[in-house]
Amino acid sequence: MTITRVSSDKQEIEIGFEKPFCIIGERINPTGRKLLAAEMAEGDYSRVVSDAIAQVEAGATMLDVNAGIPMADEPAILAECIQLIQNTVDVPLAIDSSIVEALESGLSVYKGKPLVNSVTGEEERLEVVLPLVKKYGASVVAISNDETGISEDPNVRYEVAKKIVERAEDYGIPREDVVVDPLIMPVGAINLAGRSALDLIRRLREELKVNTTCGASNISFGLPNRHGMNAAFLAMAVGAGMTSAIMNPLHTEEMSGIMGADVMMGTDPECRRWISKYREPVPEGQAGARRETRRRRKA
Amino acid sequence: MTITRVSSDKQEIEIGFEKPFCIIGERINPTGRKLLAAEMAEGDYSRVVSDAIAQVEAGATMLDVNAGIPMADEPAILAECIQLIQNTVDVPLAIDSSIVEALESGLSVYKGKPLVNSVTGEEERLEVVLPLVKKYGASVVAISNDETGISEDPNVRYEVAKKIVERAEDYGIPREDVVVDPLIMPVGAINLAGRSALDLIRRLREELKVNTTCGASNISFGLPNRHGMNAAFLAMAVGAGMTSAIMNPLHTEEMSGIMGADVMMGTDPECRRWISKYREPVPEGQAGARRETRRRRKA
Repeated sequence: MTITRVSSDKQEIEIGFEKPFCIIGERINPTGRKLLAAEMAEGDYSRVVSDAIAQVEAGATMLDVNAGIPMADEPAILAECIQLIQNTVDVPLAIDSSIVEALESGLSVYKGKPLVNSVTGEEERLEVVLPLVKKYGASVVAISNDETGISEDPNVRYEVAKKIVERAEDYGIPREDVVVDPLIMPVGAINLAGRSALDLIRRLREELKVNTTCGASNISFGLPNRHGMNAAFLAMAVGAGMTSAIMNPLHTEEMSGIMGADVMMGTDPECRRWISKYREPVPEGQAGARRETRRRRKA
Repeated sequence: MTITRVSSDKQEIEIGFEKPFCIIGERINPTGRKLLAAEMAEGDYSRVVSDAIAQVEAGATMLDVNAGIPMADEPAILAECIQLIQNTVDVPLAIDSSIVEALESGLSVYKGKPLVNSVTGEEERLEVVLPLVKKYGASVVAISNDETGISEDPNVRYEVAKKIVERAEDYGIPREDVVVDPLIMPVGAINLAGRSALDLIRRLREELKVNTTCGASNISFGLPNRHGMNAAFLAMAVGAGMTSAIMNPLHTEEMSGIMGADVMMGTDPECRRWISKYREPVPEGQAGARRETRRRRKA
């Protein structure tokens, strides 16, 4: 069984086929969030902190941290955010940037073993990101596109993933530290995108034997009832072998899809997490009364 | 590819791996519905009719009809309900009874090719139900339990299903007319029930090559947020190869799970059914305005 271990200084989590699905909170990312971007650029991280807390409370088992703000000092901001978040919540982090200096800056201050997000199959990226991942003993998200772009053919995406896994091994990074993102295409644009994604996830699990992740909400881009579709996709993806996703844990439908899928896969023993999340709170005063009744019955 | 054809006098539908999931509405069943039972026993079928219409409007592609009321003349009531429902809606029906006389009574008035619900692997049932199915050229739900009860071991349930399929063939009923119910156990009681159900569904598809159905809501028995769990299970079951379910189409979460799964499986071309169900209605007056804009742009 392939287990990816990531950690903070306070917590280790395991990503794997027999483990609960790993929910990587995506909210700390200024892309498309004007207000957050402006605050972060000015050194105001109050929303970063509150988003970190809210996502963990909602069930995130990891948090992705991205500081990609145009014209800002991304390496410095990313490092500051990581330190602040690590002082606030216990979960391990994914350090997310397309700029190598920002990744290194984040890695240099990170306490524990993070997930580097990400490397692609482009030669230029492989050559700079993989040595960094090795140097810091991190794990890495491998995105299955290369110089030729994103192929619509899942076989090509599989081969790109395989190339990255093998190249990582050349750098001394074990297979279990590479988490493949098979790249989810919108079903609204490509009708067979769902099916080919599920087939690819299954193949990555059974043949390449790697853990997987994805930006799940891509699947529903441009369609109505996106949360409903994301939830169905996520449950099916878990069934096919997907072991993590970068997603918004504040969305209740998606979370219900994943938590239900964990129950189905047997990774929520005795449905404990499901019951604890969804059981009705016992109305004031009745908890005692119920216990009383039970005691009386026994007597 | 295995295709089960069922029909009314107005409509044929195909159940199969490359077809949209077949949603068999379960509401017309007096079990646990005191009011409906009382009305049906008195010959008042107004609720039967309104339930038929409501389920078809909600997306049911077939309806299950059960008239199992203690002390009532089940064969007569079942036949009357079937005739009434066939005069009301177009979809094919599943004729549902544990009493052979009721099945025969229903079959004798049915127009088209129905689904007989059901036969088990018990010798006594096989010997009386299969000849009826053959006589009327129907298809049949095969429930994977036998004289020894319902096995918790999915391999045993697979073998029972295989026995029924082979016995049906002995009676001249082709494999594609047997829809296997692998019997879904509650995950709240048996923690691995979800996983073993999904494995069994996949095996029934890949090895026995039969269509499948189930009473989906069993999976969540005794747990909170049942609709959320049913939805996750149904989406995963579709992914594993389940081709129909006996369920309540008025439950929006379950329907969203199935319709999303159809999109993922590629059986909802261009997401047409999804979009037509979930798109926001265009506010009064704006549809024309939008067309106008487009026309002006073209000019």
